[in-house]
Amino acid sequence: MTPFKFEVLHTSNRSRARVGRITTPHGIIDTPNFVGVGTHGTLKALDNAAVHEIGLQLMFCNTYHLMLQPGTAVVKEAGGLHSFINRSLPIITDSGGFQVFSLAYGSVADELKSKGTKKQDGHVLKINEEGVLFRSYRDGAKVLLTPETSIAAQKDLGADIIIPFDELPPYHIADLDLKQSLDRTHRWEERSLKFHLSNPQNQAMYAVIHGGVHKELREASVNHLTKLPFDGFAIGGSMGKTKAQMLEMLGVTMPLLPTDKPNHLLGIGDLESIDKCIPLGVDTFDSSYPTRAARHGILLTKKGPLKITKSDHARAFSPPEEGCCCPTCQKFTLAYLHHLFKAHEMSCMTLATLHNLYFMVSLMHSYRQRILNDLC
Amino acid sequence: MTPFKFEVLHTSNRSRARVGRITTPHGIIDTPNFVGVGTHGTLKALDNAAVHEIGLQLMFCNTYHLMLQPGTAVVKEAGGLHSFINRSLPIITDSGGFQVFSLAYGSVADELKSKGTKKQDGHVLKINEEGVLFRSYRDGAKVLLTPETSIAAQKDLGADIIIPFDELPPYHIADLDLKQSLDRTHRWEERSLKFHLSNPQNQAMYAVIHGGVHKELREASVNHLTKLPFDGFAIGGSMGKTKAQMLEMLGVTMPLLPTDKPNHLLGIGDLESIDKCIPLGVDTFDSSYPTRAARHGILLTKKGPLKITKSDHARAFSPPEEGCCCPTCQKFTLAYLHHLFKAHEMSCMTLATLHNLYFMVSLMHSYRQRILNDLC
Repeated sequence: MTPFKFEVLHTSNRSRARVGRITTPHGIIDTPNFVGVGTHGTLKALDNAAVHEIGLQLMFCNTYHLMLQPGTAVVKEAGGLHSFINRSLPIITDSGGFQVFSLAYGSVADELKSKGTKKQDGHVLKINEEGVLFRSYRDGAKVLLTPETSIAAQKDLGADIIIPFDELPPYHIADLDLKQSLDRTHRWEERSLKFHLSNPQNQAMYAVIHGGVHKELREASVNHLTKLPFDGFAIGGSMGKTKAQMLEMLGVTMPLLPTDKPNHLLGIGDLESIDKCIPLGVDTFDSSYPTRAARHGILLTKKGPLKITKSDHARAFSPPEEGCCCPTCQKFTLAYLHHLFKAHEMSCMTLATLHNLYFMVSLMHSYRQRILNDLC
Repeated sequence: MTPFKFEVLHTSNRSRARVGRITTPHGIIDTPNFVGVGTHGTLKALDNAAVHEIGLQLMFCNTYHLMLQPGTAVVKEAGGLHSFINRSLPIITDSGGFQVFSLAYGSVADELKSKGTKKQDGHVLKINEEGVLFRSYRDGAKVLLTPETSIAAQKDLGADIIIPFDELPPYHIADLDLKQSLDRTHRWEERSLKFHLSNPQNQAMYAVIHGGVHKELREASVNHLTKLPFDGFAIGGSMGKTKAQMLEMLGVTMPLLPTDKPNHLLGIGDLESIDKCIPLGVDTFDSSYPTRAARHGILLTKKGPLKITKSDHARAFSPPEEGCCCPTCQKFTLAYLHHLFKAHEMSCMTLATLHNLYFMVSLMHSYRQRILNDLC
């Protein structure tokens, strides 16, 4: 099996934007690139054969969800995640740390709107130095997630890229608490790395840089984690309340990262953010935005988002996006998609998702071309 | 365009089972065959490109639903239903008559359970000699469905096979009322045929034989309708409360039909009925059973129905059905489908539907082989 490798092929002379190539045991990932989210081992509304045809090079699966259903032992018995879900191309899994945060504080958006009050839903039973004890939302069983159990689960899954166990502190947190959380996250990441390196299994591990919107802490996190033999760096933690705050944080953080290793921006993938973050040197982005938008009847197009159910489209007997080579635009009209959405037919969600995924794959291809030509 | 044609290629020497070929402007339909139900112009959970690949030769679309959404004028403007939904193979549409019955009495199953009490939901405003006035469930607009408006709508849709406007009287009906309904249906069918023949548009029209479970009325209906220049005959109306009652009715009706024209059994397509009706000489069957079963996690297999979510299947790392050549069995395991269903991923509905549709297409192929060999 090919070992993990990263090469920078070109860096723009206008910005930190770069074109690179990540080599993994399951093939290459051209960067910058978009990473599709397939939480349970499938992109919502698409089967993995269709995803393969669209050419999505990297899929993001969630360890937390797969631990609870079907259980990582089942996936291991199937020969690992690639075999279980029948995907021959690269996969990245996370640590479950993000879900600890979600269980404790609700979604990122909910938490940003709140004043930092902890959601008391009883799922998270205990957080301490060892790890996190919580109840499965599926069957109420107690589950202990620690750096070691998270990495063991990710070894069972066998993704090409794995993520150390971390805590995602909320946006609303006192500096001292954030510092304490960061220190513990660093200890958790070191334990994760140690556990991983005891049996690398040809997997690569990306550290997760934390520190919220606190510049000194981000710097401290980069300094701490880049000294350890991680294969790449993910940017996690709170990115702030606004895009401006996120870009300010990234403006400080990105130049501190080693240029010879790949980086990934966790959970961000809206078009505006991608456009602003590529010049900062971000290599990969994961987001459920394009697939979720599709299920809500929004097509991504070069002219901006297109709402399928808009009454103007009832008689639009042309492809949803002229010139688009996706399977949907090649075969069906916008009027037909409009009709299917109005009739609540689920085939429309599949057709819209195919288009949006193809759009993202093409968009990232065009960014790489622009960087190669020093145009961004 | 090729005109409509029917040939009997072989009749079994053991029964009335026959192998035939229907030629339509959009291609051939080998009989006996299964007709997939695509109410709104799509089989639920599949796009029409996938349906094409599976090789489904005839799709059933519902005029009533398409009249209300997107409206037959829109479909006509798109160049007809084949063009609007991008299907190059044959399509059959119904008249909307069945929905009149459903609106007035609830579903067939509901009505059978009731004592014949009319559902007073206010959708059907008036039924008289002219036709039926009802309110659209979509926008509350009044819609008048008559033999002429139904056929005009089916002209706009442009299916290869169309159905005259009929009334579907309930199972619970007095003989005299049934006789009156039958006479009116015959008048409606004649008006439909006349309207159709004034502009045939290369479409074929199948009469609908009525008479409920009343043998003399079925005979009267066959005698009346076979004298008119219809291209084929559909069996409609109440088929009784049990399969035995349906088979008894068909045992009387089928031998009365001309053997040189194709026939269709409306709304029946469970595996047991197909097996019992083919020897009676039925040519085509439409049913939403295989696609609905798939969405409920039931796979049709040669060994019988398979419930995907059964816990035994969590570790079934083999195709859902060994030896099956459908896209699902070729690419994914039963364990993976089990997981997707457990995780409520809609991609599983698509994968299960692909399998069940392929199963039906293959099943009908094997029936044709058996008839050619005089085995049924």
